[in-house]
Amino acid sequence: MSDRPETPTLDRVTVPADMKRLSDAELKRLADELRAETISAVSTTGGHLGAGLGVIELTVALHAVFDTPKDRLIWDVSHQCYPHKILTGRRDRIRTLRQKDGLSGFTKRSESPFDPFGAAHSSTSISAALGFAVARDLGGAPEHGIGDCIAVIGDGAMSAGMAYEAMNNAGHLGKRLIVILNDNEMSIAPPVGAMSSYLSRLYAGAPFQEFKAAAKGAVSLLPEPFQQGAKRAKDILKHSVMGGTLFEELGFSYVGPVDGHDLDQLLTLLRTVKSRATGPILIHAITQKGKGYAPAEDSADRGHARAKFDVVTGEQKKAPSNAPSYTKIFANSLMAEAAQDDKIVAVTAAMPDGTGLDLFAERYPSRCFDVGIAEQHAVTFSAGLAAGGMKPFCALYSTFLQRGYDQVVHDVAIQRLPVRFPIDRAGLVGADGATHAGSFDIAYLANLPGFVVMAAADEAELVHMVATARAIDDGPSAFRFPRGEGVGVEMPETGVPLEIGKGRMIQEGSRVAILSFGARLQEVQLASEKLSQRGITPTIADARFAKPLDRDLILRLAAEHEALITIEEGAIGGFGSHVAQLLADEGVFDHGLKFRSMVLPDIFIDQSSPTDMYETARLSAPHIEAKVLEVLGVETLAARRG
Amino acid sequence: MSDRPETPTLDRVTVPADMKRLSDAELKRLADELRAETISAVSTTGGHLGAGLGVIELTVALHAVFDTPKDRLIWDVSHQCYPHKILTGRRDRIRTLRQKDGLSGFTKRSESPFDPFGAAHSSTSISAALGFAVARDLGGAPEHGIGDCIAVIGDGAMSAGMAYEAMNNAGHLGKRLIVILNDNEMSIAPPVGAMSSYLSRLYAGAPFQEFKAAAKGAVSLLPEPFQQGAKRAKDILKHSVMGGTLFEELGFSYVGPVDGHDLDQLLTLLRTVKSRATGPILIHAITQKGKGYAPAEDSADRGHARAKFDVVTGEQKKAPSNAPSYTKIFANSLMAEAAQDDKIVAVTAAMPDGTGLDLFAERYPSRCFDVGIAEQHAVTFSAGLAAGGMKPFCALYSTFLQRGYDQVVHDVAIQRLPVRFPIDRAGLVGADGATHAGSFDIAYLANLPGFVVMAAADEAELVHMVATARAIDDGPSAFRFPRGEGVGVEMPETGVPLEIGKGRMIQEGSRVAILSFGARLQEVQLASEKLSQRGITPTIADARFAKPLDRDLILRLAAEHEALITIEEGAIGGFGSHVAQLLADEGVFDHGLKFRSMVLPDIFIDQSSPTDMYETARLSAPHIEAKVLEVLGVETLAARRG
Repeated sequence: MSDRPETPTLDRVTVPADMKRLSDAELKRLADELRAETISAVSTTGGHLGAGLGVIELTVALHAVFDTPKDRLIWDVSHQCYPHKILTGRRDRIRTLRQKDGLSGFTKRSESPFDPFGAAHSSTSISAALGFAVARDLGGAPEHGIGDCIAVIGDGAMSAGMAYEAMNNAGHLGKRLIVILNDNEMSIAPPVGAMSSYLSRLYAGAPFQEFKAAAKGAVSLLPEPFQQGAKRAKDILKHSVMGGTLFEELGFSYVGPVDGHDLDQLLTLLRTVKSRATGPILIHAITQKGKGYAPAEDSADRGHARAKFDVVTGEQKKAPSNAPSYTKIFANSLMAEAAQDDKIVAVTAAMPDGTGLDLFAERYPSRCFDVGIAEQHAVTFSAGLAAGGMKPFCALYSTFLQRGYDQVVHDVAIQRLPVRFPIDRAGLVGADGATHAGSFDIAYLANLPGFVVMAAADEAELVHMVATARAIDDGPSAFRFPRGEGVGVEMPETGVPLEIGKGRMIQEGSRVAILSFGARLQEVQLASEKLSQRGITPTIADARFAKPLDRDLILRLAAEHEALITIEEGAIGGFGSHVAQLLADEGVFDHGLKFRSMVLPDIFIDQSSPTDMYETARLSAPHIEAKVLEVLGVETLAARRG
Repeated sequence: MSDRPETPTLDRVTVPADMKRLSDAELKRLADELRAETISAVSTTGGHLGAGLGVIELTVALHAVFDTPKDRLIWDVSHQCYPHKILTGRRDRIRTLRQKDGLSGFTKRSESPFDPFGAAHSSTSISAALGFAVARDLGGAPEHGIGDCIAVIGDGAMSAGMAYEAMNNAGHLGKRLIVILNDNEMSIAPPVGAMSSYLSRLYAGAPFQEFKAAAKGAVSLLPEPFQQGAKRAKDILKHSVMGGTLFEELGFSYVGPVDGHDLDQLLTLLRTVKSRATGPILIHAITQKGKGYAPAEDSADRGHARAKFDVVTGEQKKAPSNAPSYTKIFANSLMAEAAQDDKIVAVTAAMPDGTGLDLFAERYPSRCFDVGIAEQHAVTFSAGLAAGGMKPFCALYSTFLQRGYDQVVHDVAIQRLPVRFPIDRAGLVGADGATHAGSFDIAYLANLPGFVVMAAADEAELVHMVATARAIDDGPSAFRFPRGEGVGVEMPETGVPLEIGKGRMIQEGSRVAILSFGARLQEVQLASEKLSQRGITPTIADARFAKPLDRDLILRLAAEHEALITIEEGAIGGFGSHVAQLLADEGVFDHGLKFRSMVLPDIFIDQSSPTDMYETARLSAPHIEAKVLEVLGVETLAARRG
């Protein structure tokens, strides 16, 4: 406790209702203490720091003015929600953030009534808030009722089509709805896209001072006929801010830009909005990511995501890594291929760091495209590039590729266009929890005709798969690899294209064959070491391809063993299902085969370490060992215990 | 041939290059003849009529001015492409449109070099055109080169987020790119959304005459410094059209509105654009769907989709139907439930007719939401409604639900929100071909934890599944049903909720059990009749649920038969894969079971009748019969022939 900041005002606030007793001056002190507490908490847990620091004043103002949880406050993406959690009854658990059994790093319905809608993927908040607003007007929650519906959305999230779809619909329906555009010129990466330039122009033309005068009256919210003075203020507002016409043309009242760190201004504006708003309104708040914490303000990413750190210096305490990350290896491999092939281009959706394409962009700036948070466009843009003779690598996380699924089916697969999909964060990902798990891509890609679907068992395999994808020029391909560091295998000088649809033998054994797809291979090998102590030497193979399957390998393994076990870092419907279909079609089951398919279980797994999450998923070495013993009918103490 | 129109000018045009020899006056005659030929062709084939008639002049002008196929012309959705096909070497096959082995009803890369990018789902064209434009500037197609990249997109398609994502990226990149906004105030249904109102305001304020004067100089395209006269014209333009600022703010030059049926004006404008454009430009053309054919112009849907018809009267020749459509039954059932439960609301994405929700909207206008072509928003909006205490039915076609997949996973499934997904057009759909097939939904929904996934075997089952979905209030559910008419079974008075995860026995037999999921049940019964002539009486069961599985039923069928065959109207990874997983986990395969899973084959199936497509898919009664005989080892002549 000695490192904890002094927080006398914050100590009086357990839930937002406690804030109603505070004066505006006290609310300012509350904001300062909330900032200190947030920094202190994240220094011990790691997590998203910069985003929360950017909305300290917004968080205080919103909870001071509105009546949460009856008023529904929805944080887009919600990595900025730590201060919100501190103010809404969760301060006592804030130092469990992102830990096993601790608070989620995102808003979560099951965690608190103050989290009316969970998030983690971007740009969903306006759609959700509109749903609440319509439900309110239809009497959807009669027990307590629904008050105001407020979405807080970042400028980066505004590049996503679904935010536009939601505004288009909200503008049409005309329901009372409050959208706060939290414009920090910075989502995860520097902003891209025309919308971002537009927003910059909006506030470049509008000094806060002028707006401040106008905001006192918040005249754009006044019903006709206007007061004389209000009319004048409205004119100032209109002209000083260059209109905000884009939003007005979509049916929103636009107010702004407003200084998102000026609590007086925020309180005045929000109180007026609360008392006067009728239809949809957009409040454009300018904030600074990492605000009030110098080490965050001074860093390139404004303190976006942090390991545990020293509060005074900002220095992060990260465990030293033994092997480079899969992400880095992917990026280096792609650059090596790109050096030989000027048709290779890279596309990402607001994830240049996360996918390693920031490195690619440095070396090949004209061949790298960050399209913003816009996966639908990223996929079809890549399809257009492929149709135009380029070799696009469209690099996304597994969980975000879900956003472009129809485009993968319709624009890539049906047209057999050679778009390559490097899929990062395949499988369970750790602290980001269920919302970021890459669980479904094997299933939803491998059933698309003509798709080549690969998974890397280790970082050397990844190098070869980049080369393989480059070589596949007659149709789409994907290769998946996990989050985190490689396993430290010897690295090849260069990538060599793999034979399509051919796996590799790892170990010849007997009785049972384990066929691994992806990075569980290390766990399989660990299990094998344990099994060998019992005199069981499993055959081990790395499938490399979920599609096309290595029929010869699979049928041989089935023929030569009494049991065949598949394992993958994915949900049912993927690799194991394809193997089962082959075995059934070929009549292998007709006369008996002990076949088991080890897949992710039918639950969403909450955040923890990836190792621990795979324990929960029962896909670690001990579970593989137990599965082998069970299927071979070897009784064990563990098996008897279940 | 006697019914064919006289087309002396069109007869001189086989490919667009032939148009270069025609005078503007001849191009006008060409347009008139092209319109007549389009009407004549669609009268014999059926298909999308109104959209093509709305772009006759645009099609002629684009091909006359630009150099296709080197210039890449991309039709959004592309149901308006019939006139384009007539002018690009496919006139001799135009009366095979949408028929088996005939021309596709959409653009298709494999069909013609004049179709650089296939479509059928909306709002992909700007992304694809931008891909071509970037490929051009990077030297992507060195053999012939890439010229101008032109996307023609409707106003309805502009409600989709991905169109906005693409414009946002295009405005940022600043590449030369031409977008033609074909604004007919009508996509499939009347337009919805704020963007639609915005477009109306744009042209309400701009009489064509004024624009015409300005367009002669097309001054907005002139580089600085402006000529004096041009400057004046530019001012006229700017002010007369109210700015088009929304597009300008996204980085596009805006020209319009222009009369899309005035060929002189189009030719002048496009020639200027071709010679002068630098960055991205949006041309706003006002057209009339169904233009020039009175029966289309006078109909509510402007001749959107037509069966074969009489050219003179416009009367459609539709085969009389014996049973109501699944769509209609869904709509009636939902209205019946809604009459008892005021929490039921319906959401669709620009498909009120196709989903039957137009009927629902008539009776419950305040409880029905057409959000436009915006599936991502539709799903999360529904999640918000559910979180707000409503019971949303989010009705989409299977193929379009792919557009909202991440939102289904992230906003619905992870949060266990009780959104109901009625999935129309499940399985193969006929004339719309591969792009509209509902092949993947079983796989991509049934592997989501907590989802209930049902399929209706017939129209009576559908009634019960609507009631079941209404009753499922603790998590998400989906029920799929095919395109077309029901099978004529006796209909229940009211829907009765089914027991979750329980199938039903259809017929007790021996040796082989056939477990059907969905509407293949009729084919199974037909196969059973044939088999009974050979003394084989299969057991038949209707699974009803792919998730949760009816474990007891499946294990009993496996235990009591030497063979178990599953069948579904979906791709691998779905129902059959879940059954296989269960059988493997339970050790049923250990001692032998003749298990087969009949699924859609690993190909995209081109348009034909649904019956014929299921023949191709080998999922019809004869294939079921053959599968039973094969698995039981009964030699047949057909089996010997392969």
